[in-house]
Amino acid sequence: MRLSQRLIAELFGTFWLVLGGCGSAVLAASFAGPVHGLGIGFVGVAFAFGLTVLTMAFAIGHISGCHLNPAVSVGLTVAGRFPVRDLVPYIVAQVIGAALGAFVLSLIATGKPGFDLVASGFATNGYGDHSPGHYSMAAAFICETVLTGFFVFVILGATDERAPAGFAPIAIGLCLTLIHLISIPVTNTSVNPARSTGPALFVGGEAISQLWLFWLAPMIGAVIAGVVYPAVAQRR
Amino acid sequence: MRLSQRLIAELFGTFWLVLGGCGSAVLAASFAGPVHGLGIGFVGVAFAFGLTVLTMAFAIGHISGCHLNPAVSVGLTVAGRFPVRDLVPYIVAQVIGAALGAFVLSLIATGKPGFDLVASGFATNGYGDHSPGHYSMAAAFICETVLTGFFVFVILGATDERAPAGFAPIAIGLCLTLIHLISIPVTNTSVNPARSTGPALFVGGEAISQLWLFWLAPMIGAVIAGVVYPAVAQRR
Amino acid sequence: MRLSQRLIAELFGTFWLVLGGCGSAVLAASFAGPVHGLGIGFVGVAFAFGLTVLTMAFAIGHISGCHLNPAVSVGLTVAGRFPVRDLVPYIVAQVIGAALGAFVLSLIATGKPGFDLVASGFATNGYGDHSPGHYSMAAAFICETVLTGFFVFVILGATDERAPAGFAPIAIGLCLTLIHLISIPVTNTSVNPARSTGPALFVGGEAISQLWLFWLAPMIGAVIAGVVYPAVAQRR
Amino acid sequence: MRLSQRLIAELFGTFWLVLGGCGSAVLAASFAGPVHGLGIGFVGVAFAFGLTVLTMAFAIGHISGCHLNPAVSVGLTVAGRFPVRDLVPYIVAQVIGAALGAFVLSLIATGKPGFDLVASGFATNGYGDHSPGHYSMAAAFICETVLTGFFVFVILGATDERAPAGFAPIAIGLCLTLIHLISIPVTNTSVNPARSTGPALFVGGEAISQLWLFWLAPMIGAVIAGVVYPAVAQRR
Repeated sequence: MRLSQRLIAELFGTFWLVLGGCGSAVLAASFAGPVHGLGIGFVGVAFAFGLTVLTMAFAIGHISGCHLNPAVSVGLTVAGRFPVRDLVPYIVAQVIGAALGAFVLSLIATGKPGFDLVASGFATNGYGDHSPGHYSMAAAFICETVLTGFFVFVILGATDERAPAGFAPIAIGLCLTLIHLISIPVTNTSVNPARSTGPALFVGGEAISQLWLFWLAPMIGAVIAGVVYPAVAQRR
Repeated sequence: MRLSQRLIAELFGTFWLVLGGCGSAVLAASFAGPVHGLGIGFVGVAFAFGLTVLTMAFAIGHISGCHLNPAVSVGLTVAGRFPVRDLVPYIVAQVIGAALGAFVLSLIATGKPGFDLVASGFATNGYGDHSPGHYSMAAAFICETVLTGFFVFVILGATDERAPAGFAPIAIGLCLTLIHLISIPVTNTSVNPARSTGPALFVGGEAISQLWLFWLAPMIGAVIAGVVYPAVAQRR
Repeated sequence: MRLSQRLIAELFGTFWLVLGGCGSAVLAASFAGPVHGLGIGFVGVAFAFGLTVLTMAFAIGHISGCHLNPAVSVGLTVAGRFPVRDLVPYIVAQVIGAALGAFVLSLIATGKPGFDLVASGFATNGYGDHSPGHYSMAAAFICETVLTGFFVFVILGATDERAPAGFAPIAIGLCLTLIHLISIPVTNTSVNPARSTGPALFVGGEAISQLWLFWLAPMIGAVIAGVVYPAVAQRR
Repeated sequence: MRLSQRLIAELFGTFWLVLGGCGSAVLAASFAGPVHGLGIGFVGVAFAFGLTVLTMAFAIGHISGCHLNPAVSVGLTVAGRFPVRDLVPYIVAQVIGAALGAFVLSLIATGKPGFDLVASGFATNGYGDHSPGHYSMAAAFICETVLTGFFVFVILGATDERAPAGFAPIAIGLCLTLIHLISIPVTNTSVNPARSTGPALFVGGEAISQLWLFWLAPMIGAVIAGVVYPAVAQRR
């Protein structure tokens, strides 16, 4: 496939990840209607994020590899599975897709009378006062690093030629669901710098000033996994 | 297979989609018994809709292709995957199936003392005052167009001959689950004109007068996806 | 495989269906601890029932076919997929397995101080006053007939040699989850006479006097599906 | 693969099981924010535990077999599927991984102001006063024995060469989800001595003094399954 096609696929896929994952959080997580308990809560948001990846991995895996995440692209590069020359274009496409996904979500979300985008948080990631459970910066950093590391480890393992063929989208998508089941209270869950950047552009303030952590920690985790998996898995 | 067999399969499948998806919403979403919190909420409804498609795609995919949705049939036609001559018969079978599914659901639902079908909403779709979260017509239109577009994009990608064989029912069914996790608060989620039409016939009023949006917006999304996916995915 | 091995597999499998499905309902559905909202609700019960079938279909599908349900055995027989001579032994093994599963569940459940097995309902099925939502006998009958019919239809379709190989346990297990998402409020969901009989033996009263419906309605649905699927799906 | 590689894989996998499963329970199960009902409850915890196994089985199944559980290793040994000489090294690696997973979880969890690790229970297993529903020791013992037995039975069946190839991670992971849907109220669910030991080391007291049950009962269940499955499944 041409690079332009692959970049468009990454852009669409990351758009879908943000529209679907952050959209479920913004629109449906704490829905309060006449009857209590209808909102999807963190369980629903966790499945939504995971299913954006599962669905897109089946839909565009054969086009672009379906990274949808700068940390994943970096981890695959470190592991020798992705060419360095395509890394920056992929990351740019992912961030643009995430920003466009957040933009379309803002169009829908503001169609509700009284919705205040900034006050809602708009599914941005954060630590300290900006963490759902007020977790410290150190806890958030450890959490994002470790979870991204295992995410990339699972991606490398499930796409290993010795793993069952065809199942990787299920393993990877549901791994993202699992990661959200663990860590929404800590950081609102990122493990994906593009996903953090998209909504932050529309909220500003702390969402922007804390973005560094959601680029740095996932990248560290991804690099570690990109080194560790090949070492553990190599044939001897 | 003969066209008559394929149409019966589409009719059964769309019956199942409405009975299962709308049925879970009407019968179980906000169940209030002696103990709180037993109802399945929007998460349960989202899984129910998705699983109607997942189960039928495994059961009748080899008979009719398991569209169960006029927008899907149109999107596949635009993408050159479905013959134009079968389009109208498929859509007619889908709408009849949806209406029959809603009819059987009404028989079951009215077996509960005090159940008022019209007041319950009967899982119809809507915008403005008829939207669960009172979202505007514009937000509803954008939401239905974009989500149907991605739904058809995922269908085209997951059934591409380069995608893993056999997994498409999982990708497509869980994509519908994801779409419901995002958008039940906005429009009660359609992305399927037949699904909107079935229950509306039993509720009347705004459910009918707003039906145009749930035919028009999904069709626009499906046409766009039917053009975009082949362009992005073509081999060069 | 010898018939004796297949019958032991069916017994174990139906034991698992009752212990897991009814167990989740009795032990965990409305768990009330110091914190509200921890109980698994009907969504959790729906997944538990489905996963008993999914897991056993992968574990013993190659031994006995993993019916775990007299209605399924009857439907497969009508469709010409199961020999008549094995029908009664299979049904007997399923009912014994269900009764033993309910027995072991009673041992665990009564280990909780103050647990009253009969007052709890013990996950028995029922209509009228014994229905969770007080649905009428007619509604319950229609519901059990139609849902069992579609269940057997999905089983026949997903195990058709033209369906993707290996996926049937997923389709069938998640179909049972879907059926529970729809109908727990109506009858507590049976679609399986053995599953209804097991717990009823320990509760007595209406649970026994209403058992006829949960044998008759599922059987009618299964017979219809056993006739309809082959007619719709046959090659011409 | 070298034994050292396989042991590192088991260590990582069991780390993931404890961090993900116990982490979801500690961090997210009963999350109480400004809006009620966002916490993932027992349903979310059940999926988290299952998905740790599903994801790791795809990621390292081809390296170590992905046991992540001393009872599983024992059951496979009894069934003749795992060499006795590797049993102790595997169990040691699993327990170390579980302890490290609990350690990293403690780093994250204590990043929340006011979090009291011991008072929280830290997802330890227990019976009597230490059981979420105050179930008796006898009920807990039966529950852990039976559920571990079926877990190992499903593992042996789903990895049988006659079962569909590639699906075992799904069957096994979702079996662990099912087991949690049933039994969190009884013992907080173990079926895995390593998973019980990891968090107990950080809580002490009853969590340690009750550990014997969560080693003994799962082992008995695993041994029974390791004898029964081959007998039921053998070709004759």
